[in-house]
Amino acid sequence: MSDKPEISPKMQNLYDLAAELDDLGHIAALLGWDQQVNMPHGGAEERGLQSAAIGRIMHEKFTSDEVGQLIDDLVEEVGDLNAETDEARAIKVAKRVYEKQTKVPLPMLMEQIKVTTMAHQAWEEAKAKSDFSIFQPLLEKIVDLRKQYADLFKPYDHVYDPLLDDFEPGMKTAEVKEIFNKLRPQQVELLQAIAEKEPPDNSFLKQHYDEDLQETIGRYVITRFGYDWNRGRLDLAAHPFTTEFGQGDVRITTRYLKDDAGSALFSTMHEAGHAMYAQGVPPKYRRHPLSGAASLAIHESQSRLWENLVGRSKEFWSFFYPSLQMLFPQYLGNVSETDFYRGINRVEPSFIRVEADEATYNMHIMLRLEIEIGLMEGTIAVGDLPEIWNTKMQDYLGITPPDVARGVLQDVHWSGGMIGYFPTYALGNLASVQLWDKMLEENPNIPDEIAQGKFDTILGWMREHIHQYGSKFEPQELMLKATGSKITPEPYIQYLKTKYGEIYNL
Amino acid sequence: MSDKPEISPKMQNLYDLAAELDDLGHIAALLGWDQQVNMPHGGAEERGLQSAAIGRIMHEKFTSDEVGQLIDDLVEEVGDLNAETDEARAIKVAKRVYEKQTKVPLPMLMEQIKVTTMAHQAWEEAKAKSDFSIFQPLLEKIVDLRKQYADLFKPYDHVYDPLLDDFEPGMKTAEVKEIFNKLRPQQVELLQAIAEKEPPDNSFLKQHYDEDLQETIGRYVITRFGYDWNRGRLDLAAHPFTTEFGQGDVRITTRYLKDDAGSALFSTMHEAGHAMYAQGVPPKYRRHPLSGAASLAIHESQSRLWENLVGRSKEFWSFFYPSLQMLFPQYLGNVSETDFYRGINRVEPSFIRVEADEATYNMHIMLRLEIEIGLMEGTIAVGDLPEIWNTKMQDYLGITPPDVARGVLQDVHWSGGMIGYFPTYALGNLASVQLWDKMLEENPNIPDEIAQGKFDTILGWMREHIHQYGSKFEPQELMLKATGSKITPEPYIQYLKTKYGEIYNL
Repeated sequence: MSDKPEISPKMQNLYDLAAELDDLGHIAALLGWDQQVNMPHGGAEERGLQSAAIGRIMHEKFTSDEVGQLIDDLVEEVGDLNAETDEARAIKVAKRVYEKQTKVPLPMLMEQIKVTTMAHQAWEEAKAKSDFSIFQPLLEKIVDLRKQYADLFKPYDHVYDPLLDDFEPGMKTAEVKEIFNKLRPQQVELLQAIAEKEPPDNSFLKQHYDEDLQETIGRYVITRFGYDWNRGRLDLAAHPFTTEFGQGDVRITTRYLKDDAGSALFSTMHEAGHAMYAQGVPPKYRRHPLSGAASLAIHESQSRLWENLVGRSKEFWSFFYPSLQMLFPQYLGNVSETDFYRGINRVEPSFIRVEADEATYNMHIMLRLEIEIGLMEGTIAVGDLPEIWNTKMQDYLGITPPDVARGVLQDVHWSGGMIGYFPTYALGNLASVQLWDKMLEENPNIPDEIAQGKFDTILGWMREHIHQYGSKFEPQELMLKATGSKITPEPYIQYLKTKYGEIYNL
Repeated sequence: MSDKPEISPKMQNLYDLAAELDDLGHIAALLGWDQQVNMPHGGAEERGLQSAAIGRIMHEKFTSDEVGQLIDDLVEEVGDLNAETDEARAIKVAKRVYEKQTKVPLPMLMEQIKVTTMAHQAWEEAKAKSDFSIFQPLLEKIVDLRKQYADLFKPYDHVYDPLLDDFEPGMKTAEVKEIFNKLRPQQVELLQAIAEKEPPDNSFLKQHYDEDLQETIGRYVITRFGYDWNRGRLDLAAHPFTTEFGQGDVRITTRYLKDDAGSALFSTMHEAGHAMYAQGVPPKYRRHPLSGAASLAIHESQSRLWENLVGRSKEFWSFFYPSLQMLFPQYLGNVSETDFYRGINRVEPSFIRVEADEATYNMHIMLRLEIEIGLMEGTIAVGDLPEIWNTKMQDYLGITPPDVARGVLQDVHWSGGMIGYFPTYALGNLASVQLWDKMLEENPNIPDEIAQGKFDTILGWMREHIHQYGSKFEPQELMLKATGSKITPEPYIQYLKTKYGEIYNL
């Protein structure tokens, strides 16, 4: 209430525009969700045209001179865009997005949509056939388009900056490099220490757990976490993801793997973390310029927190392992709670990021970041990617993918033009531990609550310190407010050392 | 090819506009499909706003003065809009829709969307609670809006004409009345004759057939019919329906009733009939002014043909009954093929149209038509509907619904503002038999083929005589071409008399 003492007519115009763009953005999201969850193969071509139609309409509505004038007038009206009122921040966000979007000529946007639609199909085929050459020409086009995009924002400190900024507002490549430079040696050191130890057994996970029961468990766990089913649903998709069609409809997907019982449960927790963030943005930001999240790293801090800090914790399994053991006596009857906990936290270099344990996960991201920077700087050619990928995998994780499907083709992102996205995964990991530490400092009872299956203090704290702000604050600003520090690697390193020190007796 | 010797620049403009409107229309369809199939309750409010946003954009794009000028120019360029070229007919269709849509002021359209969104929720609640008063004020608004709509088209022969014309291009209320006046006495006479006979037993249907098996059967049967799964899918929804998001994605829904084994199978056949029509419109009409169907009656002729003429025929069950008997020996082991055939064709006055047998179905439609005409003429007040409904049910079918949920509230259509729609159901029945008779005249072997589980002659004939034309011809014109006659009741009456004469020994 106090945020809205009076709304000027121009401010109201901005809010009306944001409401309409939110509607259109959510329509675009539905087109994408349906494409991944339901669409028969025959619908692909027209769906691409439908998505392009919405993209074009949104672009036209938002990048008109009238909108530019409106924003200019509002900047003058409000003055300090860093004032902590909803109005100032709404204008700041609108101005930022407007300035970015008006730089992009419509033909470039349409070319981007066309190329990525084709690239997605090519990537799927290339991955299925493990044949990089099918994807290569389209990835070359995408890299070229991304370079053209970055050039629109000259002068920049680094060619990768404009891409990173799309996902992590205000973040610079130099900052990310600095963080990763601190992280890498410590994480490598930890992995070396772990490699010298006998790994815990996790063969009990490599079984075919009944899928209906897996689904029941996933639904039960995230219901306890606080996922609101009245405003969401769970479906199957090849790649787990979260998407929203408004505050009242935030959906998640998962998939069940035949030989990895943990995968679906942890990914369901992960997506529920994303979804509870979206469900937690307050109603006052519905169809509003601040309706979104602070950034992808902040989003990832929420998903990784529920997946790892909660879901892979000793306390969670102290609460939940008896139920799991009851449901799967054939696999778990002779596995103690401690052995189970050690097993699900086994550190093992893996080919695929999404299946990586906490200790190796960031290595995948650092590898990817170096490659993306190389592609953008022009020091890496797309044609050399399969080889470079494998060399780096060997350097960082000591393993070489047996084929490109499990190598450079593993992730969907590049086919969608998403270069600049990966660092946010690692930044989210770091942020998750910073938030966790601060929350526990204020609520030392949380581990005991988790052990009793209670999660409302956690969700309440996140609602208060993260969710309630929508996209009002930039990510680093929000982290400062919530934890007293920007994103920094030390807490994460400390967390890994403590956790794996105990599990591996380091 | 020969249809497109040369496309003028203006003609190309029209095609481009139609393509964009098709994309937007298919997006709107996806919003609706998802609402009925997937959407959690919390998404309703924003979904309504999203649908309104697309509706508004489509209206704005299509009703501009430039579009009007383009159509005027094209009319001049082409001359005779009744020439049988794609161009002439595309312009004719565009002109017709443009003239209708430009008559509707945007505020009226927005009001219509707002009221029907609220009315849908009110109807659901009213039906669940069997309390007409919850729906009454909104239905009053809808009737009022429909009267205002009709008034935009003055002078008209009848106030119901503009509504009917939205669903059945070119059809007049007087024509429908004339058809129904011929139909009614003969159908009443037949029902009276049937009522004097002992009804066949159908208790074997009133069992709880396993739903997974029911789904397997439904999928198998419509696959044989020719439904293309690469361009479609089957989902669950409270009310079975068909919808399309382009030629490559035509989806159907069904639902399984605990005490009526036939319902899901026949409704799946029915929706597949609709869907095969949409799948059968040729690729040259993709994203084209003629991409649609001739009319709802023609659409219904396809669904009813597969559901009834094929699906409830002796020949179909001669092919399929052994399989059904094998799957459900507990219910059907002692039921002969003849008894089964007679059972699924048992005539029984029922409260709900969608569950009506072929002999009583049209009575529901005639009742509804009289009420709709009364509402539009102002001779029936919305508040009197529950009583009027029940009186007419007693007159026409000899039964009185026990509550309004099974009475006046049974159908969703009015809540969506669809007044003028119901007659097309009966017209579709009539057309289905006309098409059937003509097809059998040319292909007397079809009954034998059905008995062998072969349906490609049927689908091929429909492709050639109906589907291939998209919305190029008006419904009566198309019927004339396909059968040599406009829609007429005699063949349908003859069909019912023959079929039930045999089953009931009349």
